[in-house]
Amino acid sequence: MTPPSTPSTPEHASAVDPEIKARNLKRLRRIEGQVRGLHRMVEEDRYCPDILVQIASVREALHGVSREVMRNHLDHCVAGAEAGAAAEAMRDELLELIYRYLK
Amino acid sequence: MTPPSTPSTPEHASAVDPEIKARNLKRLRRIEGQVRGLHRMVEEDRYCPDILVQIASVREALHGVSREVMRNHLDHCVAGAEAGAAAEAMRDELLELIYRYLK
Amino acid sequence: MTPPSTPSTPEHASAVDPEIKARNLKRLRRIEGQVRGLHRMVEEDRYCPDILVQIASVREALHGVSREVMRNHLDHCVAGAEAGAAAEAMRDELLELIYRYLK
Amino acid sequence: MTPPSTPSTPEHASAVDPEIKARNLKRLRRIEGQVRGLHRMVEEDRYCPDILVQIASVREALHGVSREVMRNHLDHCVAGAEAGAAAEAMRDELLELIYRYLK
Repeated sequence: MTPPSTPSTPEHASAVDPEIKARNLKRLRRIEGQVRGLHRMVEEDRYCPDILVQIASVREALHGVSREVMRNHLDHCVAGAEAGAAAEAMRDELLELIYRYLK
Repeated sequence: MTPPSTPSTPEHASAVDPEIKARNLKRLRRIEGQVRGLHRMVEEDRYCPDILVQIASVREALHGVSREVMRNHLDHCVAGAEAGAAAEAMRDELLELIYRYLK
Repeated sequence: MTPPSTPSTPEHASAVDPEIKARNLKRLRRIEGQVRGLHRMVEEDRYCPDILVQIASVREALHGVSREVMRNHLDHCVAGAEAGAAAEAMRDELLELIYRYLK
Repeated sequence: MTPPSTPSTPEHASAVDPEIKARNLKRLRRIEGQVRGLHRMVEEDRYCPDILVQIASVREALHGVSREVMRNHLDHCVAGAEAGAAAEAMRDELLELIYRYLK
């Protein structure tokens, strides 16, 4: 039986690689700690360029998580899209992600 | 005893605007919550593009904090640099920040 | 004699949409003109921020061409990759493009 | 008496380093050639990822020119801005450049 959710805006990933998931959860915990560290730096009036470099580092770490999520997406969702309208919708969504959200 | 900080790499900002500081601390608390939200999304195997859009939103929020920190830096540090070697070092640091860390 | 191109690094696109191609050629001519305009601005010692905004505009125009090329790539190459090693290589190449070259 | 040109939107740079200028003009000529090369690649239906990497290279080269222009701007314009309203306008313009056009 097919799930009730529409294919164009599913609630959940069709499949998630457990290793990627574990790695991402670990990374996000570390990123949460980095954000708390940033809060401390601002509180202590640390030198602005040091804060800016640290912000860049957190943004880079988030980009790393995004890369893993995208890898999973390409493996399990995009690859699974059959030809036709579903594949086309998937491609448009991918382009929008790449050129609007990841640039 | 405090360490003898060199003038070229100070430990602290020469001055911090209290309003900017309060706003940044508030924003960073909210960003910390957003990162926890991301952790939850990954844990629940949410649809990959939704996670990617959310990551983009956290990165954008961090960019907003960075802009405020940079505003403070330009007001209090760069403006305060006298002509000569100090001003030149400040300019090189600023270029490095802009073209390496903020791009 | 043409060189023996390996399947993993083909010389040519497997197929190109003629409309996308015509549009891209037209855009690139316009971009060439914009770069000549930049040359003129620098020659005439125009106000630096005006030059910086114009550089941003040319970079944005190039990003637009890149988006069209990526659309073609997703339609004709990625979609055509069968499952298995070829699809995996295609996915790795795509990730590298997105996270190294398009960010 | 106030000068006839408004300080906020001058037509020309207050001063340009002749070495930076010569270097930028040379770079822009090379970038013009790179854009023509891109035109050729598209015309010959070259492999999409090769075109995307080449576009990234042109965008990076433009970013390099932008860095030199910014260096000149920081040396001659920002440094020259006296305290008060002029310095504040200069700082706002700089923030806008960094966070809207250079990111």
